[in-house]
Amino acid sequence: MSPDEFRRHGHAVVDWIADYYARIESFPVLSPASPGEVRASLPAHPPEFGEPFENVLRDLDRAILPGITHWQHPSFFAYFPANASGPAILGDLLASGLGVQGMLWATSPAATELETLVLDWLAELLDLPGRFRSSGAGGGVIQHTASDAALVALLAGLHRVSGGATERAGVAAGRYAVYTSGQTHSSVEKACRIAGLGADALRKLEVDPATQAALPGHLRALIDADRAAGIIPALVVASVGTTGTGAVDPVRELARIARDAGAWVHVDAAWAGVAAVAPEFRWLNDGAELADSYATNPHKWLLTNFDCDAFWVADRGPLLGALSILPEYLRNAATDSAAVIDYRDWHVPLGRRFRALKLWAVIRWYGAEGLRAHIRRHVALAQEFASWVADDERFELVAPHPLALVTFRLRAGDDQTLALMRRVNGSGELYLSHTAANGKTALRLAIGSPLTERYHIEAAWRALSAT
Amino acid sequence: MSPDEFRRHGHAVVDWIADYYARIESFPVLSPASPGEVRASLPAHPPEFGEPFENVLRDLDRAILPGITHWQHPSFFAYFPANASGPAILGDLLASGLGVQGMLWATSPAATELETLVLDWLAELLDLPGRFRSSGAGGGVIQHTASDAALVALLAGLHRVSGGATERAGVAAGRYAVYTSGQTHSSVEKACRIAGLGADALRKLEVDPATQAALPGHLRALIDADRAAGIIPALVVASVGTTGTGAVDPVRELARIARDAGAWVHVDAAWAGVAAVAPEFRWLNDGAELADSYATNPHKWLLTNFDCDAFWVADRGPLLGALSILPEYLRNAATDSAAVIDYRDWHVPLGRRFRALKLWAVIRWYGAEGLRAHIRRHVALAQEFASWVADDERFELVAPHPLALVTFRLRAGDDQTLALMRRVNGSGELYLSHTAANGKTALRLAIGSPLTERYHIEAAWRALSAT
Repeated sequence: MSPDEFRRHGHAVVDWIADYYARIESFPVLSPASPGEVRASLPAHPPEFGEPFENVLRDLDRAILPGITHWQHPSFFAYFPANASGPAILGDLLASGLGVQGMLWATSPAATELETLVLDWLAELLDLPGRFRSSGAGGGVIQHTASDAALVALLAGLHRVSGGATERAGVAAGRYAVYTSGQTHSSVEKACRIAGLGADALRKLEVDPATQAALPGHLRALIDADRAAGIIPALVVASVGTTGTGAVDPVRELARIARDAGAWVHVDAAWAGVAAVAPEFRWLNDGAELADSYATNPHKWLLTNFDCDAFWVADRGPLLGALSILPEYLRNAATDSAAVIDYRDWHVPLGRRFRALKLWAVIRWYGAEGLRAHIRRHVALAQEFASWVADDERFELVAPHPLALVTFRLRAGDDQTLALMRRVNGSGELYLSHTAANGKTALRLAIGSPLTERYHIEAAWRALSAT
Repeated sequence: MSPDEFRRHGHAVVDWIADYYARIESFPVLSPASPGEVRASLPAHPPEFGEPFENVLRDLDRAILPGITHWQHPSFFAYFPANASGPAILGDLLASGLGVQGMLWATSPAATELETLVLDWLAELLDLPGRFRSSGAGGGVIQHTASDAALVALLAGLHRVSGGATERAGVAAGRYAVYTSGQTHSSVEKACRIAGLGADALRKLEVDPATQAALPGHLRALIDADRAAGIIPALVVASVGTTGTGAVDPVRELARIARDAGAWVHVDAAWAGVAAVAPEFRWLNDGAELADSYATNPHKWLLTNFDCDAFWVADRGPLLGALSILPEYLRNAATDSAAVIDYRDWHVPLGRRFRALKLWAVIRWYGAEGLRAHIRRHVALAQEFASWVADDERFELVAPHPLALVTFRLRAGDDQTLALMRRVNGSGELYLSHTAANGKTALRLAIGSPLTERYHIEAAWRALSAT
């Protein structure tokens, strides 16, 4: 495709996306497609000869859109939001156009230096502890997802508690343990399995029934029992905003207990952490200065397209110890000088995209002020929605809702609650998901789209309460 | 950013990229930036107020471009290519615009079904064995990189050889072994460390000095010794196109030995595999029908922007066994029906981008015919370059060069060879990297940019031979 063809088709794609956002409310939020329907509408075999780019756009409308669940729809309230925004889309487009690999500083110095800088910017915007800035022993990196962040935190923790022995000798089965809330994301169990500890190494902390936050007393009891049995605590993951109900674990208390036992402390604030751009939500950072690593996802609630998990460590040493390998074909003068960061040593993949561009574009377009306004608007809408739930005696709120996730249920029971979810999701007018808390089914309404206005929340409540 | 603002700024970004490709030869291939230079040219703190998007483009030219090593430059010959192309950039832009998460089939059916279809298309284009198609027990998925592919192959292998025990109990240190060529990418060692086996579990196979391909006899000897010691062979990685010299391991012989021992066989054809779009290079697939998994990267040499590693398994069972977890908040009717693929169970992350769109756009724009022509052109250029090297008595070729990577050295010695590399890379006119083969330093010239023409190769040889 020549530069001029690219210009022409590129303008058409940009127009398609602009039009998509202008007409997004004309689509059902949840795709009504049946299994196999999308595939059946496309050719079974690849074309022998090239086709005009217009054909791709035609089939996008004809075959793909009917199979899309519209995550950017203003009435998408399921899971956690996966914000897109204009500056993020265009920043990512620039990364695609440049097509550089930032695996080493030397393979494109700007890709590494902008990423380090922008992660410092974000740490400043969130008022995270100074130890996570790159000016000292710490610093930030963009991981794909919070699952990747939990995995590398575990690897760094294993490296540290073993004095570096796991790097060569591996993990002895049954020797290490990992602790996290029973309400935490499945990523921690997945990390245990990937890192060779197995799911049995995971200790799930009991939660307070009222707050759904992990109980520090249970962490202490589990760690004491493990240590008495010769098992080494490797990692404690504190959740700031659990996936189920948005619960905020008592990071400071958990971290103190973990540090006493020598375990790595990772704060998983994937969804909630970015709310700290607004000073009134900085209580979310309480205790973070005791953590070894911290992760939050601008690709969830900070207007930055997937993938963009911001991950900081207070000390780069154990992370590099766990992951650094230098074969001859990657040797270069800058790496040998130790004056630069080589991000390939901070995560699983070697190759890496210039993802900092999109986060840089977002922060510059919105500014600190714009990001604060974005978060505050969603929190205010969620508080209003929660007040309507509280005022309707058929419903009950199941957990605190200080941010933009509200969990609630029909007092009538689990079956009735799930039936309500199926009915509203099937209408195509809104989409929400469910979880379990205190052994009961609850619905989750997570507000996160830049397009969501008060009338979308009102419509959601009308649909839910017309039961 | 409103749809109309997006339209305006989007056109400007598309124009910027079109212009970038039109003027790419005006930049030095290798960035001359010193450590810290890019960062120092940008504000130390984030802006309080939003800025016009024009400022981002202005700073892109002013601060970022001087720190870019231009991977898409026609005289970029280092590492392996990381192809971008117009249709891939635009397919990826559509994915950004839609902003959907394909973690479950249910969260956007089209994202899953197009990916399964396009991986079937690619398997057909490469004439890979039928067992990797989704119509049976196998199928394909897009991983971030070949490193991720090697990791999940190892996890699937551990699951299978342990009868599923590693999922809960973890890996006992010293119990499992992994085998691969000493010339293989560092990703296999990294996978061993991440999966908790430790680097000591990796057995590096000796290579034939002439071909740099792994020696099956050595694999057999290592496996016999391990089994005699009670160590279980978990994974054998055969490389089709090693990173160092592009050597092609004898997959069939290695796989037979591995299968006899019960080990998982993974073929890492990250760079070379895509060449099989042309029938004359299908010898690369020899023995692939004995493999359990196979990976090749369209993001290297098949015109598809990073990241796009195509990974196929012959049997999905062990992969899902190793990685599947179903918390309440992800339960849904489609998953419970087992009639659909949920790609979150095929890799480390949960969230996933709609990456199939870019590969779909590439295959449709170029067609099978266009992809064959792309590969053939580069191979022909490399053969011509190799002939010039062979005809110059100051140089020697160090390994076979059946594809588009030529490895060579100055007979004068390692220091002279490295000095030559530094001189040409420092000129900004071309960029190539180095490796070690048979204990000696060699230079690597990898041809892969769609923009590379015969006169770029001639210029490279002029620069290298003016020594």
